[in-house]
Amino acid sequence: MANTLSAAELSEILDFTVALARKAGALILEGSEAIRASGAMDEKKNSVDLVTEYDVRVEELVKRELSAKYPSFKFIGEESYAAGARTSLTDEPTFCVDPIDGTTNFVHGFPAVCVSIGLISGKRPVLGVLYNPFLDQLYSAVKGGGAFLAHRGLPPARLPLAKPRPLPSLSQALIGIEWGSDRSADMVNHKGESFKRLEGNPAEGVVGGRMAHSLRSLGSAALNFGMVAQGGLDLYWEIGCWPWDICAGSIIAQEAGCLVAGSHNSPLDNDVNQEVLEGRKYIVIRAIGDSETEKGTEAQKRLVKEFYETVDDFEPK
Amino acid sequence: MANTLSAAELSEILDFTVALARKAGALILEGSEAIRASGAMDEKKNSVDLVTEYDVRVEELVKRELSAKYPSFKFIGEESYAAGARTSLTDEPTFCVDPIDGTTNFVHGFPAVCVSIGLISGKRPVLGVLYNPFLDQLYSAVKGGGAFLAHRGLPPARLPLAKPRPLPSLSQALIGIEWGSDRSADMVNHKGESFKRLEGNPAEGVVGGRMAHSLRSLGSAALNFGMVAQGGLDLYWEIGCWPWDICAGSIIAQEAGCLVAGSHNSPLDNDVNQEVLEGRKYIVIRAIGDSETEKGTEAQKRLVKEFYETVDDFEPK
Repeated sequence: MANTLSAAELSEILDFTVALARKAGALILEGSEAIRASGAMDEKKNSVDLVTEYDVRVEELVKRELSAKYPSFKFIGEESYAAGARTSLTDEPTFCVDPIDGTTNFVHGFPAVCVSIGLISGKRPVLGVLYNPFLDQLYSAVKGGGAFLAHRGLPPARLPLAKPRPLPSLSQALIGIEWGSDRSADMVNHKGESFKRLEGNPAEGVVGGRMAHSLRSLGSAALNFGMVAQGGLDLYWEIGCWPWDICAGSIIAQEAGCLVAGSHNSPLDNDVNQEVLEGRKYIVIRAIGDSETEKGTEAQKRLVKEFYETVDDFEPK
Repeated sequence: MANTLSAAELSEILDFTVALARKAGALILEGSEAIRASGAMDEKKNSVDLVTEYDVRVEELVKRELSAKYPSFKFIGEESYAAGARTSLTDEPTFCVDPIDGTTNFVHGFPAVCVSIGLISGKRPVLGVLYNPFLDQLYSAVKGGGAFLAHRGLPPARLPLAKPRPLPSLSQALIGIEWGSDRSADMVNHKGESFKRLEGNPAEGVVGGRMAHSLRSLGSAALNFGMVAQGGLDLYWEIGCWPWDICAGSIIAQEAGCLVAGSHNSPLDNDVNQEVLEGRKYIVIRAIGDSETEKGTEAQKRLVKEFYETVDDFEPK
């Protein structure tokens, strides 16, 4: 295959990765049950950052099948990256995989867990599949082809699930946030104070308060992207993730009309290039309908700016 | 029926309320889609505390059907309570209903929304049904009969879903928390600082930090009880809810082996009496397996005490 993948090639790869994601999902489910039945919990970095033999097994399954089918494609995965096989990104087609996104949920049986299979070409995500076997939810997208959610055996529904509404301000937003695995005083204070400002009412003493509708935490970066794509969250903000956490999610979000960007000083041109992919700071805002006075795409940019004026943009470990 | 309901009577009421919850769920789903299609959002107390015509319609449906079938039973519901029909709790059988738990989610299409139908007898919850139509999840329990979750058309599974594991400390807990609708500086600071201590690492500068596995926020008190009952969360803490938010959830949790209690100075005897029901402060911890050195029921009490030593126990509005 050429470096630039055709729509037909992407469509064929999508069929293969969707089937593979379902196979990986079955292994995830088996693993989660086995771990909770045995009571075993291994530790990676600290008690927050759990990993198990299944994380490796799922990555091996996905990598083996992708390599057999697409031997010329490169591969970036959490487990192989952790083992020292860091690959510098090229223009070549490169799979970017998180075998189990939401590892803490996986260990606890909290049903927000997915396998995330992304494909990068020309250093940008061009295909994404997320499968949550706990809820049988499958998100998918290829560049230019729209984004879809298949749930409970129903045919895939195009995302977002409802016609995009306007979003006048952050005060009307339901926002996805995560506490993450870095628990130092510096991080906890930056995040904690940011969350307080998002939540707090400026008329009741919270300086800089935005009084958002509320904050939600699912514990899976990839599924938060999916939730913004479907319109169930208005915005999701993350610091400290890696490319495999958000590669598939970001093309699904973009194909659902979302704006995806990096840190507070990244351009708001919806270009998920290498700098954004590897920047470890991510923001995604849902498709917004035009209002009488503002285009939806302009509202997305305004709200991302307003958001970054509200939170601390700090450096992850 | 006598004041004390027999197992046979409870079983029959359960069949009726399960069918009613599914009917209410269909109306909730219809409402959520209609609201998002129209873009309409009404306001109750402030922009956080959304309510819609469907909240009233669902309560009317549930109240009408329960009254027709069980005319001698009393009824407590969020909407009628708000309208001034506050009923003092008696020993008589009393339905306690939240038509739409997770109203903000309902408006946004975030799929953690349920109808909550509880039955109180002798001033204690004796039956509970939660139905989330977005995910087709139905939790149910009657006193003495165990708790169950029916999902995706599968037969009901007994809760918890896996054999209860030990839980040595809060540092291994996945904890449900919510920011709630009170956004004053006082509340935001109490909650924010409590969450920071739950999350933070004492070895990295967070004084009093417990370094829990993580925090999750679903935005539905009732479904948080269900999630603790099934074992997907280890603990859930709430300040500011009302009896209808937690009535059904608390009997489901108790029947799944959980300990349910009120504020930091409430007894840890798992008695959800009137004081706990109406106390607006709730904590629920999952069934814990015995370890080599400690009974699970003792671990529950120890961890609730440890939790209340960590968070601020303040007065809700």
